[in-house]
Amino acid sequence: MNYRMICRVLGLILLALAGLLLLPLIAGLCFRENVLNFVLTIGICAACGGLLMLPRPRSRTLVARDGFVIVGLGWILLSLLGALPFVFSGSIPHYYDAVFETASGLSTTGASVVTDIPAMPRGDLFWRLFTHWIGGMGVLVFIMAVLPMSGEHSMHIMRAEVPGPSVGKLVPRVRKTAMTLYLIYIGLTLLEAVFLLFGGMSFYDALLHACATAGTGGFSTNPASIGGFGSVYIEIVVTVFMLLFGINFNLYFLLLIGRWKDVLKNEELHWFFGIVAGSVLLLAAGITKIYGSFGTALRHASFNTATLISTTGFGTVDFTDWPEYCKWILILLMFCGGCAGSTGGGIKLSRLMILGKASLAELKQMVRPRSVVRVQMDGKRIEGGTVRAAFLFINVYMVLLLFFAFMVSLDGFDVATCFTAALSCLSNIGPGMTKLIGPAGSFAIFSPRTKLFLTLAMLLGRLEIYPILVLLIPRTWKQ
Amino acid sequence: MNYRMICRVLGLILLALAGLLLLPLIAGLCFRENVLNFVLTIGICAACGGLLMLPRPRSRTLVARDGFVIVGLGWILLSLLGALPFVFSGSIPHYYDAVFETASGLSTTGASVVTDIPAMPRGDLFWRLFTHWIGGMGVLVFIMAVLPMSGEHSMHIMRAEVPGPSVGKLVPRVRKTAMTLYLIYIGLTLLEAVFLLFGGMSFYDALLHACATAGTGGFSTNPASIGGFGSVYIEIVVTVFMLLFGINFNLYFLLLIGRWKDVLKNEELHWFFGIVAGSVLLLAAGITKIYGSFGTALRHASFNTATLISTTGFGTVDFTDWPEYCKWILILLMFCGGCAGSTGGGIKLSRLMILGKASLAELKQMVRPRSVVRVQMDGKRIEGGTVRAAFLFINVYMVLLLFFAFMVSLDGFDVATCFTAALSCLSNIGPGMTKLIGPAGSFAIFSPRTKLFLTLAMLLGRLEIYPILVLLIPRTWKQ
Repeated sequence: MNYRMICRVLGLILLALAGLLLLPLIAGLCFRENVLNFVLTIGICAACGGLLMLPRPRSRTLVARDGFVIVGLGWILLSLLGALPFVFSGSIPHYYDAVFETASGLSTTGASVVTDIPAMPRGDLFWRLFTHWIGGMGVLVFIMAVLPMSGEHSMHIMRAEVPGPSVGKLVPRVRKTAMTLYLIYIGLTLLEAVFLLFGGMSFYDALLHACATAGTGGFSTNPASIGGFGSVYIEIVVTVFMLLFGINFNLYFLLLIGRWKDVLKNEELHWFFGIVAGSVLLLAAGITKIYGSFGTALRHASFNTATLISTTGFGTVDFTDWPEYCKWILILLMFCGGCAGSTGGGIKLSRLMILGKASLAELKQMVRPRSVVRVQMDGKRIEGGTVRAAFLFINVYMVLLLFFAFMVSLDGFDVATCFTAALSCLSNIGPGMTKLIGPAGSFAIFSPRTKLFLTLAMLLGRLEIYPILVLLIPRTWKQ
Repeated sequence: MNYRMICRVLGLILLALAGLLLLPLIAGLCFRENVLNFVLTIGICAACGGLLMLPRPRSRTLVARDGFVIVGLGWILLSLLGALPFVFSGSIPHYYDAVFETASGLSTTGASVVTDIPAMPRGDLFWRLFTHWIGGMGVLVFIMAVLPMSGEHSMHIMRAEVPGPSVGKLVPRVRKTAMTLYLIYIGLTLLEAVFLLFGGMSFYDALLHACATAGTGGFSTNPASIGGFGSVYIEIVVTVFMLLFGINFNLYFLLLIGRWKDVLKNEELHWFFGIVAGSVLLLAAGITKIYGSFGTALRHASFNTATLISTTGFGTVDFTDWPEYCKWILILLMFCGGCAGSTGGGIKLSRLMILGKASLAELKQMVRPRSVVRVQMDGKRIEGGTVRAAFLFINVYMVLLLFFAFMVSLDGFDVATCFTAALSCLSNIGPGMTKLIGPAGSFAIFSPRTKLFLTLAMLLGRLEIYPILVLLIPRTWKQ
């Protein structure tokens, strides 16, 4: 374990945090607010970051577990220090609430404990939504894109933070990959912001909602979320961009270099839009009675399908009023999540596809034990290791889901609230499927202990489990 | 595919069913009831069975898929024909209800659509509880134990019907294994019946409740289940035997041949009793307030832990009134299920242990990619194939659970009712975790469509998924 190098990267993370905090500080200044909370936090981050960078590493080599430890600890540090502005300004008085909110932002969950959004300073609100954008693409990927670091070894960091099966295959060098992905991310964010400006949103709202969509987060400056803007145009723009950010970013890269045939052939994309179309139609049929016309029903069905499959969590209407089978469609979407290599959370579609294909292959093999059945995706054979990893991930995901549901139940809430609160946090979505924690509810109802566990669930979900679990086994810390 | 041989075995199954139906017929005669319904059903079974056995098989060879098809179709036939006595007597007027009840019995679930148990003829009630006993050890195993069949090839049938990881390793010959297991099963059943007789139960009640416990079923002759007998002694006896039937039967065999050291060292057994003890204490602490004293709480906690982990489903009190976190402990027990090689359902403890061990090994490997981490149980290495099979099973189980929950939701019931109804049926337990379908509720509330799907879920759960799924893929039916 290269402790000095780990400290150095963690120090870099804190310096990056200090830099990123300048943006809400500027926003606060524009609105003539007291920005002492940001000044203080920037000072603390810079000081801690500087201290961590003091010991000069003897070697720059990082092995796999260093990558996991950096990512795990990095994200925990970001949540702990990123929460300070809310506490200093008093907009979120309790520290554990502020940590929950920050982790919810960084993990792009969007579950909130803030009940009075209009009372929040504009600077704090900027930071709250901006954390989604930071968390969406990953802070460490950002650092690697911007700062000069040794090439091959930082791969371990990137693997740990962006664990989708296809990372790093676009361009051989990590830094270039990170840069490309970040440029696509920034481009799409700005594009959405422009579209939202046309819809009559203020510059502040348009930029922040674009950031929140880009990270598939779900926080809003409006207490009624996207529905509060009362504009069908805005709803449609957000729907489209939520879906766009739920797609594998590598496909945009392929589009940029003109390989649109590969994009059109992408199996995961077919399934993604197939599931979206199917869900929208089923939901629209189920809620037409509630909204009077099929057109309105289709709009609400589209928005909420997009918000849940992309794991964003913006709201327009309260889907906890929908028929029970519609709720279950939404719950299934919450499990599913976006494509691999997107900013969305959840199990991820590609894993479920691997599960489906591998199960079918197993079944066929069972029927004719001597035949050879291959598991393929996009025309390529999926190796046993990939199948095994997908199986393991889904299993561990389910076990964690039940564990967190149990931990929430200690607060005495009903089965559905516990289950969907845990699911929503682990899949980085935001709302749950009951009135209490639905689009019109709030996670403020939970006890500090439960908030702590849900914070952990959100980080586990965002980092795809292993970087956090690795911190918990003694073997990691033995030399 | 050896169609003639498949027909022959299916014919044998129906003849066995006809034979087994003589018992409720005799019971009905003892109570001087009209037993025309049984006479008719026996006639139909015998006729169909005879017809199926007419074509003389050219070869007695059975391959793997023949085994799956025999088991899948065999259990469906048993459910369809075993339901007839209830319809003929009018005790369950609708055929789909009767099929649900019979499948619930045979699959040892114990979920019931009968709302007026005292109004049922004693013969019908005998058949209802006796199906648990038949289903517990498997009808086909019974046939193989009693009838002369070719040795090696019938292994495929046994593998498909009793898919626990350790089947067939006790004694080399299938028939002898089946005989031994059946003798243990019969012995334990009679032992419990004797204990229950001492508690003041009638011979009829004692025998039937022993049968229902042996199969880890859960039907009762009393509308208030075991609680209706108002005897602490009976509760304790049933608690003990539910746990005994949740243990791997191979351990009893090892005890019989004096290898008690191997039994004491069995890891799954340690975990089984560890989980039981932990759950009982946590539950007792949570419900002491409700029942006034810790002693009473301990009794109820023990009974309900045993009833759910063994997937029996007998009831004494309504646990849906318990605190939310207690309900979640019970839900987790419902996932868990009994030991491999027991008559209990659920995921089975050994699979969860493999999942836990393999996950930890994977995590260790991730931290130090060059090290070799082995997965072991009972001192023996678990092979990759076994791990993969356990992973796949748990994944498919979870996907099916969500699918069935969704199908139930089409009836418009709340999230928790849909979820726990599907879980209860798939794990072959009986009651769900909400008032509607809890110990005081009934599955009669569901629509015919939902009952059909839950019937399928129960059979999938009992046969550990594959024999039913195999019937659904075209590859099975191609020559």
